[in-house]
Amino acid sequence: MKIAIVMGSDSDFGIVKKGSEILKRFGVDVHLRVISAHRTPHKAIEFAENAEKEGYEIIIGAAGKAAHLPGVLAGVTLLPVIGLPIKSSTMDGLDSLLSIVQMPKGVPVATVAIDGAENAALLAVEMLSIKYCELRAKLKEYRAEMALEVEKKDKAIQDINR
Amino acid sequence: MKIAIVMGSDSDFGIVKKGSEILKRFGVDVHLRVISAHRTPHKAIEFAENAEKEGYEIIIGAAGKAAHLPGVLAGVTLLPVIGLPIKSSTMDGLDSLLSIVQMPKGVPVATVAIDGAENAALLAVEMLSIKYCELRAKLKEYRAEMALEVEKKDKAIQDINR
Amino acid sequence: MKIAIVMGSDSDFGIVKKGSEILKRFGVDVHLRVISAHRTPHKAIEFAENAEKEGYEIIIGAAGKAAHLPGVLAGVTLLPVIGLPIKSSTMDGLDSLLSIVQMPKGVPVATVAIDGAENAALLAVEMLSIKYCELRAKLKEYRAEMALEVEKKDKAIQDINR
Amino acid sequence: MKIAIVMGSDSDFGIVKKGSEILKRFGVDVHLRVISAHRTPHKAIEFAENAEKEGYEIIIGAAGKAAHLPGVLAGVTLLPVIGLPIKSSTMDGLDSLLSIVQMPKGVPVATVAIDGAENAALLAVEMLSIKYCELRAKLKEYRAEMALEVEKKDKAIQDINR
Amino acid sequence: MKIAIVMGSDSDFGIVKKGSEILKRFGVDVHLRVISAHRTPHKAIEFAENAEKEGYEIIIGAAGKAAHLPGVLAGVTLLPVIGLPIKSSTMDGLDSLLSIVQMPKGVPVATVAIDGAENAALLAVEMLSIKYCELRAKLKEYRAEMALEVEKKDKAIQDINR
Amino acid sequence: MKIAIVMGSDSDFGIVKKGSEILKRFGVDVHLRVISAHRTPHKAIEFAENAEKEGYEIIIGAAGKAAHLPGVLAGVTLLPVIGLPIKSSTMDGLDSLLSIVQMPKGVPVATVAIDGAENAALLAVEMLSIKYCELRAKLKEYRAEMALEVEKKDKAIQDINR
Amino acid sequence: MKIAIVMGSDSDFGIVKKGSEILKRFGVDVHLRVISAHRTPHKAIEFAENAEKEGYEIIIGAAGKAAHLPGVLAGVTLLPVIGLPIKSSTMDGLDSLLSIVQMPKGVPVATVAIDGAENAALLAVEMLSIKYCELRAKLKEYRAEMALEVEKKDKAIQDINR
Amino acid sequence: MKIAIVMGSDSDFGIVKKGSEILKRFGVDVHLRVISAHRTPHKAIEFAENAEKEGYEIIIGAAGKAAHLPGVLAGVTLLPVIGLPIKSSTMDGLDSLLSIVQMPKGVPVATVAIDGAENAALLAVEMLSIKYCELRAKLKEYRAEMALEVEKKDKAIQDINR
Repeated sequence: MKIAIVMGSDSDFGIVKKGSEILKRFGVDVHLRVISAHRTPHKAIEFAENAEKEGYEIIIGAAGKAAHLPGVLAGVTLLPVIGLPIKSSTMDGLDSLLSIVQMPKGVPVATVAIDGAENAALLAVEMLSIKYCELRAKLKEYRAEMALEVEKKDKAIQDINR
Repeated sequence: MKIAIVMGSDSDFGIVKKGSEILKRFGVDVHLRVISAHRTPHKAIEFAENAEKEGYEIIIGAAGKAAHLPGVLAGVTLLPVIGLPIKSSTMDGLDSLLSIVQMPKGVPVATVAIDGAENAALLAVEMLSIKYCELRAKLKEYRAEMALEVEKKDKAIQDINR
Repeated sequence: MKIAIVMGSDSDFGIVKKGSEILKRFGVDVHLRVISAHRTPHKAIEFAENAEKEGYEIIIGAAGKAAHLPGVLAGVTLLPVIGLPIKSSTMDGLDSLLSIVQMPKGVPVATVAIDGAENAALLAVEMLSIKYCELRAKLKEYRAEMALEVEKKDKAIQDINR
Repeated sequence: MKIAIVMGSDSDFGIVKKGSEILKRFGVDVHLRVISAHRTPHKAIEFAENAEKEGYEIIIGAAGKAAHLPGVLAGVTLLPVIGLPIKSSTMDGLDSLLSIVQMPKGVPVATVAIDGAENAALLAVEMLSIKYCELRAKLKEYRAEMALEVEKKDKAIQDINR
Repeated sequence: MKIAIVMGSDSDFGIVKKGSEILKRFGVDVHLRVISAHRTPHKAIEFAENAEKEGYEIIIGAAGKAAHLPGVLAGVTLLPVIGLPIKSSTMDGLDSLLSIVQMPKGVPVATVAIDGAENAALLAVEMLSIKYCELRAKLKEYRAEMALEVEKKDKAIQDINR
Repeated sequence: MKIAIVMGSDSDFGIVKKGSEILKRFGVDVHLRVISAHRTPHKAIEFAENAEKEGYEIIIGAAGKAAHLPGVLAGVTLLPVIGLPIKSSTMDGLDSLLSIVQMPKGVPVATVAIDGAENAALLAVEMLSIKYCELRAKLKEYRAEMALEVEKKDKAIQDINR
Repeated sequence: MKIAIVMGSDSDFGIVKKGSEILKRFGVDVHLRVISAHRTPHKAIEFAENAEKEGYEIIIGAAGKAAHLPGVLAGVTLLPVIGLPIKSSTMDGLDSLLSIVQMPKGVPVATVAIDGAENAALLAVEMLSIKYCELRAKLKEYRAEMALEVEKKDKAIQDINR
Repeated sequence: MKIAIVMGSDSDFGIVKKGSEILKRFGVDVHLRVISAHRTPHKAIEFAENAEKEGYEIIIGAAGKAAHLPGVLAGVTLLPVIGLPIKSSTMDGLDSLLSIVQMPKGVPVATVAIDGAENAALLAVEMLSIKYCELRAKLKEYRAEMALEVEKKDKAIQDINR
């Protein structure tokens, strides 16, 4: 299981790494890349063209502002592309979100929440689990842990307020 | 290959069916359902709980306004859930989009464009193609057709303006 | 008089407690809970199913981003549900607000201002006062205090600027 | 059980009447009024001052644009005020929604969706049911009907697509 | 020449005082008040009813969030009311702006920029200058000073970059 | 009493004339002009420079999209300028509103609601009434008529629903 | 003088042709193309790579929704790229605008108003006039005509309202 | 090659200088000016009238809030005007962006991203390169450097995560 996380700028790494860590936890081989749809367009195209051959099964594209990277990759590869909108210094992430999610008919990008790197990773795991059934058990466990954490906090809050 | 498209209201069917047709074209078995996260919450939970057992590999959830359906299904099932925001009579679809895409950490929904039923379907096919490699060839063909269509229009426009 | 305040995450507590304090002042029994519509969906459903039996008369649901919690609870219980949108790190609370207030026909959520925990509490008290008339006197007193405070500030401002 | 629905303009009646019908179905005595916070401010204040004495238990305030009516009524009465934002010819209802829901600390308005007259009515019934327990049974029935309707449509859709 | 600046909360004073200072510079008698449309509604009505008699010629109303104060005053008095939207902790001032500017037909509020206290004051001076011609000369002088300041900065910038 | 209504395009006339009629009713001499801040900038400047000399006491500037006209006039004249944002084919009037209301420190524009021509006119009358006291009586009468109309509708609604 | 107008879909032609006509009037050789950044990505890259060689001096890129076309072309060519956001069926053109204008540092797109095809053309002519001085005279004439038209309308309005 | 960067306020200089430095790097003669469309309107008009004569080939106009400066300059000069929206303390730059980009038919402003001073400069260089072919080589070099930087970061990220 091999996934690429491509970010438009290395300033996105602070957000992106949270997703990368989750993928590693699930035993997914993660390759991180910095490729810009605008500053290194040929590299972006080339990367997308070869992604399937290189053994990637999913691409996560993270980008801010007029965030074209996920859409550009999605137009070239047949692999599922997950779009991760990054909040930049203006417009509170709305520009990134709309630039990624509002893809025209024919070329989808699976968009997650603004700065939602963990969910980009978990979505990738869910997609992989269609093929790799063993991931389902790990996902179940992950969710159980999450639930447990919520329940602990629930207890803590109930105790505080008794 | 079996996919469920669950819509929050049968008024979403006008949009949804465009996605359903694409899925059939790709040989995917599509089950259409009308289940409301708010009006039939137990049915929504039950559906999501049994979806994997029933053989579904992906769920597409279509909903408008405070569109909770995809998120509610995603919280229960481990299958990938694709969220399709439907434009309603106010707010131009922004409410549906934000209600679906801005999922909190831990439970992703793969969101596509507002009213983007075709892309929800194509995203599902791309996800399935991780496992069912034969879909890649069909996707390639689909894209080639799309490209051809664009090229025809390109020629027509060039001719008109000569 | 017993009310539950359910929050989607314990990070909402900073806002929520302001409402909790107001409810206590009015002699309302408040139970604070952390239950996530997405991470602990069955607990959410179960809580809503039993809320009436447990003696709750109103539920306040606080949540951020794609804030489904109040709507999910409202779909299961017949008790009035007050929705408290929490501002998160992106979108300035607009996502939370729209996800809570734009409920489809049939299942209302009584929505208050973004981060408006005090008003969620006061709205609950007003609702309770339909049945418990004695709360009206307390509300009157509360408003009188508020008015007095405004009048004090009014005088202070007038003095400063004489 | 007596409720007033006050609208800022008789042009809101097209939306408002859908709520009025629901209230009647639940056996609630509904009084419809046209009172403008800006064109008949004294009448608005007077109405709110006397509402409790007149036997009203809840007020629904419907208004568009800079929709001050529900907030103005809420500042004077101690009764719960439900705010119904009406979509007008510009801004797609966002102005009405924000003018109603973003009430400052101290005076809440229970806001429902833009043009959501049915939900304003159902919220009123839920509030009344705190005192009038018999409404719970009717609400249960109403929800059951809604659920049945959804299920019928679910079956219809499943049949069509077989 | 006498003007009232009414603010909904004393927390608005930080912004409001910038306008107050400008009015004093123009020799306008300024009375600052803290009156809340929601917490002290009768005082608001009373103030607006008596404003003309009290010798005020214009009212400036400053408020945030669901900013009803200017509109409520404007519905009662015949004096021109200037609305000053205050940015609060959520929605970046858009809620205040829309709540003030989108007044329905019949009762205008002269709205200035979010947090634009200086412009509220200058607008008041311009309105007064319709009657008190001597203000025109002072306005001319004020603008000349502003222009001079811009020109100084223009020179400074040109020097830096030579 | 003489007022100019300057519109950026004659397509704004459909909205503008509603204000013009109100002004005439109040006995105000109205001059309608079509002057574009962008297509006839010198004429705009010239008009604003001479407006006071020509006997105008207020200017109403109506414009859509990047609506610079009111601000440009306001930068040149010392007369109060009322800004009337016109809704155009995109952005639902938000662009016009923000372009007019968000004026920088020093040069105010008294902004009314999107397409709010009647209120632009009434605001002008209120401004004039600072000087021309006789307008106050007419304004009172106008408001009384409005109130009467609301009351008639109130009665009609009450009758219908008895 | 040779310019390419590339549109993402032939449905943009209704808007685009208004720009094309203006360019022809200025004696600019216009080539219209339909090339999709997502459906025909290689053609888009190829077109941008050869544009300079082919003798184009400017490219106008028109696109809607997640409008990547102008940005993708701009990342490959060194020619100035003008971005023309097209309003689509949702989001009132805001998605197109932000996707085009919010380009990251390093690769600009000269963006004009939503559906502003005429201005895209006129901007191109202004750019060309840096090199081809004779266009300045034509631009002057064009503007004079526009001014004349405004003045005619100004007279007509003045006559109507005398 | 001579360009003017005109800013509406010297507070814009922090953003603007990033563009100025890029222009100098390309050997373009840059003149920085502070001219306000509202506080020094005649200077703005005068500047625009003489810009061509003074040898400027392009004007960059930077402004915030109701950002009229670029549009006002563009209405007077025939030179291409590049609009640089500056984010101010409210509305996150959306007001500046819409006030600049939504220019009405006939007078375009080439708009770049909010606070995108570098791109304003690079767009100017691209425009100049239509005439001064030697700039193309420098642009190529600039882009190559940018690409190299991205590639370095790409390598660094790949190394970190090995």
